Amino acid sequence: MAKKKEKEKEKTDAGRRGAAPGRTDKKTKAPAGKTGTAAPEIRDRSRKVRIIPLGGLGEIGKNMTLFETDRDMVIIDCGVGFPDEDLLGIDLVIPDFSYLREHGDKLRGVVLTHGHEDHIGGIPYLLKEFNVPVYGTALTIGIIEAKLREHKLPFRPRLTTVRAGDRVQLGEFEAEFIHVNHSIADACAIALSTPAGIIVHSGDFKLDVSPIEGPMMDLVRFGELGRKGVKLLMCESTNSERPGFTPSEKSVGGVLENVFSLYPEKRIVVATFSSNVHRVMQIIGVSVRHGRRVAITGRSMQTVISAAIELGYMKPPADSIIDVADVKKYAPGQVTLITTGSQGEPMSGLYRMAFSDHAQVSLGASDVVVFSSSAIPGNEKLIGRIINELTRNGIKVIYDSNFSGIHASGHACSEEIKLLIQLCRPDFYMPVHGEYRHLGANRELALFTGIPADRIVTADIGSVVELGRRSAVITGTVPAGRTLIDGLGVGDVGKAVLRDRKALAEEGMVIIFASVDLGARLVLNPPEVITKGFIYTPESEGLIKEVQEIVSCELGDAVVSRRKADLETVRERVRRAVSKMLVQRTGRNPMVIPFIADL
Amino acid sequence: MAKKKEKEKEKTDAGRRGAAPGRTDKKTKAPAGKTGTAAPEIRDRSRKVRIIPLGGLGEIGKNMTLFETDRDMVIIDCGVGFPDEDLLGIDLVIPDFSYLREHGDKLRGVVLTHGHEDHIGGIPYLLKEFNVPVYGTALTIGIIEAKLREHKLPFRPRLTTVRAGDRVQLGEFEAEFIHVNHSIADACAIALSTPAGIIVHSGDFKLDVSPIEGPMMDLVRFGELGRKGVKLLMCESTNSERPGFTPSEKSVGGVLENVFSLYPEKRIVVATFSSNVHRVMQIIGVSVRHGRRVAITGRSMQTVISAAIELGYMKPPADSIIDVADVKKYAPGQVTLITTGSQGEPMSGLYRMAFSDHAQVSLGASDVVVFSSSAIPGNEKLIGRIINELTRNGIKVIYDSNFSGIHASGHACSEEIKLLIQLCRPDFYMPVHGEYRHLGANRELALFTGIPADRIVTADIGSVVELGRRSAVITGTVPAGRTLIDGLGVGDVGKAVLRDRKALAEEGMVIIFASVDLGARLVLNPPEVITKGFIYTPESEGLIKEVQEIVSCELGDAVVSRRKADLETVRERVRRAVSKMLVQRTGRNPMVIPFIADL
Repeated sequence: MAKKKEKEKEKTDAGRRGAAPGRTDKKTKAPAGKTGTAAPEIRDRSRKVRIIPLGGLGEIGKNMTLFETDRDMVIIDCGVGFPDEDLLGIDLVIPDFSYLREHGDKLRGVVLTHGHEDHIGGIPYLLKEFNVPVYGTALTIGIIEAKLREHKLPFRPRLTTVRAGDRVQLGEFEAEFIHVNHSIADACAIALSTPAGIIVHSGDFKLDVSPIEGPMMDLVRFGELGRKGVKLLMCESTNSERPGFTPSEKSVGGVLENVFSLYPEKRIVVATFSSNVHRVMQIIGVSVRHGRRVAITGRSMQTVISAAIELGYMKPPADSIIDVADVKKYAPGQVTLITTGSQGEPMSGLYRMAFSDHAQVSLGASDVVVFSSSAIPGNEKLIGRIINELTRNGIKVIYDSNFSGIHASGHACSEEIKLLIQLCRPDFYMPVHGEYRHLGANRELALFTGIPADRIVTADIGSVVELGRRSAVITGTVPAGRTLIDGLGVGDVGKAVLRDRKALAEEGMVIIFASVDLGARLVLNPPEVITKGFIYTPESEGLIKEVQEIVSCELGDAVVSRRKADLETVRERVRRAVSKMLVQRTGRNPMVIPFIADL
Repeated sequence: MAKKKEKEKEKTDAGRRGAAPGRTDKKTKAPAGKTGTAAPEIRDRSRKVRIIPLGGLGEIGKNMTLFETDRDMVIIDCGVGFPDEDLLGIDLVIPDFSYLREHGDKLRGVVLTHGHEDHIGGIPYLLKEFNVPVYGTALTIGIIEAKLREHKLPFRPRLTTVRAGDRVQLGEFEAEFIHVNHSIADACAIALSTPAGIIVHSGDFKLDVSPIEGPMMDLVRFGELGRKGVKLLMCESTNSERPGFTPSEKSVGGVLENVFSLYPEKRIVVATFSSNVHRVMQIIGVSVRHGRRVAITGRSMQTVISAAIELGYMKPPADSIIDVADVKKYAPGQVTLITTGSQGEPMSGLYRMAFSDHAQVSLGASDVVVFSSSAIPGNEKLIGRIINELTRNGIKVIYDSNFSGIHASGHACSEEIKLLIQLCRPDFYMPVHGEYRHLGANRELALFTGIPADRIVTADIGSVVELGRRSAVITGTVPAGRTLIDGLGVGDVGKAVLRDRKALAEEGMVIIFASVDLGARLVLNPPEVITKGFIYTPESEGLIKEVQEIVSCELGDAVVSRRKADLETVRERVRRAVSKMLVQRTGRNPMVIPFIADL
């Protein structure tokens, strides 16, 4: 574990490089880092870097990558994943930290690309085990601070705010933050100087030639690194299946103008991602231009907007923001509501408004609801539920499939990925961040730009990619997978528990409770039967009676049989007999749990 | 119930009108029907028709509509729905037949538009309760016959095969079958002559100006009816959100030609909907032109292709079809595989091939897999799972988002819906078949063609739409909803059971088994604790011990307390105490089921 030399949450003003791209001469000396020259005999070995993705390959989410030499280790990002429907009852998924538990003493720090959950959501769980320094831009660190307040760590975390252009020394590694555009402000790619050469990790990015705030993605710096020599480019794959360039965030503003012009008399309710500060700014801007006040609803939307205003990312005109409780005081055409719920989340502001469960706002024919968002795969049905409910109640709904351009993605499409490849001109290429289909499509883009197939590494989580001066090969694997978070439990729900949950969910259960006196060869009580999730009770009386009869019969056989029966055998015989009958009679196979006490 | 006057499965040759559209002078006299003139005093009443959708509005699937006068009733379609993820363990969903149970004596017959599951899948369940005649085209009736063989009805069903152009008299109603294009052969719209005027029900349709087999949709007949006067048009809404015209089925053939030309050396595996006979014909045709043999895998694909060949819908060239077991004998470039699994179904041919679980075929780098299909909403993740697994194994996968035109929908887009409206020029309009968003979009199309808003009926399942000569209004509701099929059970799983399944699925359960002797004030045995779906057992020993201690403590209190405790109260106290502790300790709230026997 790194020593606690530094001030808590040190602002690295000394090392700050300003937002101006390209100036890279100065260095931030990282307190926890150490440098030195490798002994000659291990020189070759020591120039190799092992890259170990612990999440984000073969999946969307829980992005996390380790970079390791013989002496030091750094991590880029530590995100959460959201559980698939087969992970019944699971709240969150984080990467498996097993490898870190063995090699955590080498860990010099965590470098964060931006503040989305799939890049930072695992930080509280990581810090609980490893008290290491964390580096990120102001908005990223701001979001983490809010998050850590809920987690109550037993120590003060060492959070360091950097700016695009800054460099941080972490043992043998030096991380340089490079400004990129994305659907959250203050996003960066990372150029990691390593003993094997420069590794560029794109993070999540897009090229926006007309950003809402701040400069365009720092193409020049990528090009400079390319000229200097990039050994490996790790590039995100989210939109690698999509042709062309991702539209500019600013293009959404024009489309919003159209919507507001079409419905001057209606109240406009816009749902979007709360972390998309630039989108929120545009919605406020259009509203003000159309003479509307803006109310904010949904907890995360209120939190993020407050934080963004506080950190200076957003400066809404005076009096433009009103309390949601005051919405009723304004005519529909004079007010805009910005809300959470763009993914159909059942507790969100929009969901509650749609299903008439919102304390302050009820929707009707004088409203237009706008989804300024797209569906994260898997959320289509939840979103559809809201659209259907609103339409059913005669409320006009605008979304990406009936109003072109109402959302712009934050991820690079094919042409932007190829552009980044051409700027960096890397010796080796590794698609990251995506399901296999996305990684495969990204690989084809690299082939198209002329990178030879044997210089493209298609890895998996847990792969150990060894990068040398002239090679990048997978040399092994380490434990990797999903650690499941359920309530307060981290990793205490595994395959067996999930299998039981699935069985219970699909077929329900039948519990049988009986007592015998094997010594006296007596069945003591008539068996009691309870079903849960199996069959509608009032209609199942006959069936339950049959179960009782079968149990009594089996128990009777057991107590009178000459061969002395042990309790386990009796239980198993009862379970089998009941299961068999239920399958025949109902076509279902509930979990049958007999309790038989020998008293 | 209608009397059994007719021959079983009568072929209505007498009433057959040939495929030629527009000849509508002759009639098929329906055996079960009765006609007559209404008594003058109830004349006005008797000219009203009640239209009651029991499925397909506010949802995709389980399409079913009743048409009723005071004397007679007919049904158009009786389909199944597929369960949402909240219907844990449910196999199928059918409409609620409650209203039919009260009024089934008026039921003169069921008219089917085409052979897709969401239009005919409920027929076996309907016939089990109501032995009524069923009318449909040859392929539709052929599919139902195969289906009924599995259901083993206690009587021979009365199935009647008709052709497009045929009319069937059903009491006061007369149903005319009108040829339309769709993704299954032999699809029809229905023009229903009723005392209130002509009702046109589109069924599922598209306009295909270059169909693979048979004529284009019978536009002329719709136009003739429009000139004669259509009182109400009920039009499907599936693709009402999509602009333009649906591409012709034939356009997919050209795209398949491209794929086959791109990969002459590879084995080509094509997944598509088994019921899309024309698509399968095109795949076989392209294969033969490229010198390939074709093997079929997947049970439903084999069944449908055999049936289609038998009924004469498909005539593959001699020797073009080979057994799937013989695939290995051919070079990859000489063979095509047609398979089920286009929706990612876990037991399908493609799924088994992708996950190396297919007896005859294993896939590798010499294969190209083509999804000639699109995702039915909700299946995206299952399909993605196959695409990811194939990509991961280096297999090229072609699907709609990376190969434009590889599938064509069977449903009318906006322009086709508007075309049908203009041909029929109905007095009243009613969007059907779709979620509310689709019904809403369809309504806007009707408004766009000039139908006034007060002549568009937006109904729900269970709505009673009363259609008169000059009005179409919702006058009430009847019971409607979902009847759940689970195993052999029809309707025996309801809300309470599903709630239990959800609770068990998300939090698991803890069962406690203890015995006391309340009379003697004794706790007889140490309590036994079993958990299922709650926590990983080896790590939960301490927790289980705590549960046992709490139970012992509560039981001890109960038996020694002065106030005589009844067993129910003791159970409830134990349940609460254990639940409270588990929530505090784990952040989860499993179902706690205590069994406490007083011996």
